[in-house]
Amino acid sequence: MAKSMAGPEIEALIKLLSRLPGLGPRSARRVALHLIKNKEQLLVPLSAAMAEAVEKVQVCETCGNIDSASPCTICTDTRRDPSLLVVVEDVSDLWALERASVINAGYHVLGGTLSPLDGVGPDDLNIAGLLARTAKGEIREIILGVNATVEGQTTAHYITDQLQAQAKAMQAADPSFEPVTISQLAHGVPIGGELDYLDEGTLLQAIRSRKAFG
Amino acid sequence: MAKSMAGPEIEALIKLLSRLPGLGPRSARRVALHLIKNKEQLLVPLSAAMAEAVEKVQVCETCGNIDSASPCTICTDTRRDPSLLVVVEDVSDLWALERASVINAGYHVLGGTLSPLDGVGPDDLNIAGLLARTAKGEIREIILGVNATVEGQTTAHYITDQLQAQAKAMQAADPSFEPVTISQLAHGVPIGGELDYLDEGTLLQAIRSRKAFG
Repeated sequence: MAKSMAGPEIEALIKLLSRLPGLGPRSARRVALHLIKNKEQLLVPLSAAMAEAVEKVQVCETCGNIDSASPCTICTDTRRDPSLLVVVEDVSDLWALERASVINAGYHVLGGTLSPLDGVGPDDLNIAGLLARTAKGEIREIILGVNATVEGQTTAHYITDQLQAQAKAMQAADPSFEPVTISQLAHGVPIGGELDYLDEGTLLQAIRSRKAFG
Repeated sequence: MAKSMAGPEIEALIKLLSRLPGLGPRSARRVALHLIKNKEQLLVPLSAAMAEAVEKVQVCETCGNIDSASPCTICTDTRRDPSLLVVVEDVSDLWALERASVINAGYHVLGGTLSPLDGVGPDDLNIAGLLARTAKGEIREIILGVNATVEGQTTAHYITDQLQAQAKAMQAADPSFEPVTISQLAHGVPIGGELDYLDEGTLLQAIRSRKAFG
């Protein structure tokens, strides 16, 4: 900003708000003003909620989810199927699956995808944790819920290789060991989606994976 | 959200963030996740900045600006012309004029516009404060920097009537009293604006207020 028209407290607030995803300098000013105008109804509770989050929120040491407890609410939920694990890239993907209530499983958050160009290698993702969880033998199926992007699929292939190598080593030690089943999400036309707006890759998958009607 | 997938602290944070202007439930989740992932670099300082704003920020009792002091930095700035006052609807308008550094004057924030349908009458705006400031006699020109909307123009007319009535009463008591000059912002084609995208009202004003070229 050209010059300070408000106190340094407001300037500092606007500057920090403008670093939030989806907010620029203009919308950060709008948000700051809205907060200040609605001090008791919004600024005070939001300030308290942030202080509370600073205090309590942590990363689950088992699955990588974010919660106020570690192991998290999902990892300690005994009503979930302990033999089923969904591997996702990010906590937001975990949240999306949980919002949809489509599976009653555990999760494993990788914390990203393999991306050599960005310097993200296997050690930067929580793959060792996944292998350690799988080695315990309780997990029977791993659903690779990674995004349908090049990076997501590369990561899925890498994880599959690692899991198969681990299974081979464990079978060598104990011939009765059953390797884990590895599956991936189905590709196709999204529900409510219009063919006209879909890319060729999705349409190709939708044709290839076509099913008997009715 | 269908069910709680994160702790109550995160749910509370998302709910409050979704009440910010321009954020919906989805972007609020994105912001919350971004905050938590960047705890030390963003969540901690933003939480502190908000606590600081809760503590210090207040409305200037003279002009209605928002600052950490009352009277505010602008009202106490002796380098500004004390005879010139810009009347604006909102603090965001004051900030816009200050960012542009186009005038070295005082301000008066009305806190909205007259809007009978929304139940906003003269007593809901800071018009009495404006009349009280003008009655002191130091202000020589009032620039009505209200928006070029129906409500803005209605408010401008109302304020003009009030100022003229006050000037008449003061002249009756003291014939040497000079009434304040009332002006408004020029209307026309915005700099960088393309005629093709402008409405008829703006084009009409631009034609009517045309000036000799060069």
